[in-house]
Amino acid sequence: MTTPELGLPMAVPADGLPARVRIHEVGARDGLQNEKATVPTRTKAEFIHRLAAAGLTTIEATSFVHPKWVPQLADAEQLFPLVRDLGDLSGTALPVLVPNEKGLDRALALGATRIAVFASATESFAKANLNRTVDESLAMFEPVVARARTHGAHVRGYLSMCFGDPWEGPVPVPQVVRVCRALLDMGCDELSLGDTIGVATPGHVSALLTALNDQHVPTSALGVHFHDTYGQALSNTLAALQHGVTTVDASAGGLGGCPFAKSATGNLATEDLVWMLTGLGIDTGVDLGLLTATSVWMAEQLGRPSPSRTVRALSHKE
Amino acid sequence: MTTPELGLPMAVPADGLPARVRIHEVGARDGLQNEKATVPTRTKAEFIHRLAAAGLTTIEATSFVHPKWVPQLADAEQLFPLVRDLGDLSGTALPVLVPNEKGLDRALALGATRIAVFASATESFAKANLNRTVDESLAMFEPVVARARTHGAHVRGYLSMCFGDPWEGPVPVPQVVRVCRALLDMGCDELSLGDTIGVATPGHVSALLTALNDQHVPTSALGVHFHDTYGQALSNTLAALQHGVTTVDASAGGLGGCPFAKSATGNLATEDLVWMLTGLGIDTGVDLGLLTATSVWMAEQLGRPSPSRTVRALSHKE
Repeated sequence: MTTPELGLPMAVPADGLPARVRIHEVGARDGLQNEKATVPTRTKAEFIHRLAAAGLTTIEATSFVHPKWVPQLADAEQLFPLVRDLGDLSGTALPVLVPNEKGLDRALALGATRIAVFASATESFAKANLNRTVDESLAMFEPVVARARTHGAHVRGYLSMCFGDPWEGPVPVPQVVRVCRALLDMGCDELSLGDTIGVATPGHVSALLTALNDQHVPTSALGVHFHDTYGQALSNTLAALQHGVTTVDASAGGLGGCPFAKSATGNLATEDLVWMLTGLGIDTGVDLGLLTATSVWMAEQLGRPSPSRTVRALSHKE
Repeated sequence: MTTPELGLPMAVPADGLPARVRIHEVGARDGLQNEKATVPTRTKAEFIHRLAAAGLTTIEATSFVHPKWVPQLADAEQLFPLVRDLGDLSGTALPVLVPNEKGLDRALALGATRIAVFASATESFAKANLNRTVDESLAMFEPVVARARTHGAHVRGYLSMCFGDPWEGPVPVPQVVRVCRALLDMGCDELSLGDTIGVATPGHVSALLTALNDQHVPTSALGVHFHDTYGQALSNTLAALQHGVTTVDASAGGLGGCPFAKSATGNLATEDLVWMLTGLGIDTGVDLGLLTATSVWMAEQLGRPSPSRTVRALSHKE
């Protein structure tokens, strides 16, 4: 056990957990995309720099989808150079979401070196989100992934609805494994297993990771992306860590979920995750104080408090 | 895997977890004691009956402390008979908190068969809460526990500040083990290990439970009582379940923590716990729909929404 600094839990490692976890910070993209308020480009760029200063090494920056679908991120073309103008972030990975080849072209033209595609494990969500079947969407991603790799870009495949789907209910594990396999086979370097509606529980997480392991999917290629809709994100994360997962998605301050909405469907808050990992003695490289200050600042920009319990507890103390 | 009913997670058991968990419901005592609003006695009695109808089998009813200290529960004498008047709860355990022999006399006079005492693992909190040293408070509880047992009452020993203390910081595990041992030796049937300020993380929980096991404290005598101050309560609960703990304290709707306070220091919400346990295929006997409806009803009595994420998500769906 190590003595904690002020505002940090005592570090007491647990058996069988990784020594280090890479947090894939999604607040600037997945978070802001789901906020009602549209944030000025300059604020977004400053947000990304503050996240990097807090020690986050992978910060998903924006999305090159059509502005008609995601007006909050319509400024991707302006944001990307502005982030560079504000200072050197060469040590920070700045992946961007691209929906198709046109989006890829825009991202590559701006010098993006890490891209992400967004697939669905269920037919209902593929239809609703992409207006395609699962296999049609995989066929659409294939040239995107191939061309990205030709340009030397790292490719992440998001897979949504890995546990439950609002139309179909529980999602069978083999169905998820099949799409994971297809995304890896087409050249994705890493997958992000998404519990888009937040219904997963630790045994379900464990069952999916076991099945992927049985199919020889390397755990090092897997990230987990949990939502706190039912408050389950951290216990699911613990189950994933116990299976050797070392990449965890989270959103600074829990951006993307409104604390006053009846249904708080937000992402896992990065601060709540860092609290648990710090307590487990797992290195993240993140300064929780700086990160909390960043989320308090962003909450002020959005005009509403952060839904993160850790942000509220720590900012109350200050 | 079993197919879920509407509004329930898919049940996917995980290895090494208990088949059944007893939830010790603290909303009516620990929850209401920490709410600003004072609830009418009749509403409290109805709340307890609704909790029992939702399947909770252990419902801490009230506290026999001096009304000067806890005015919210000053009606203990009136509540206890009123609960009986509203209907038969003979199948439901209704423990009550007693601070000293005078409180015990009041509780026994009303026919209480389960009592609880409230001890501290740290000197600072013993001084602040009981105006005694830890050993002086143990000496005070000794005749309370002995007399309760003479009357055939079941005795629970709450132990607060088992992980961190606001004045002392991290609490050494051996210090907690010593007080646990003393409470069991004086005759407590069960202990509730409290993370009063919510700073625990799963490795710390595991370390304490391992140390207690090493000192031959039977896991069957241990309950855990986690707070969601930093959002860690469910991952800590998962760690405790992995150590064989089968008694978990929770507060319906997360009563006792205000969702609008900067610092949400509330108890773990029973609904968030039931969601996880249901998903793990662990039997609790609780009907999540009835329980959620109860918490929505109580939130209306208090004039503010429940801080439970599960309550918000499920009540939004209805």
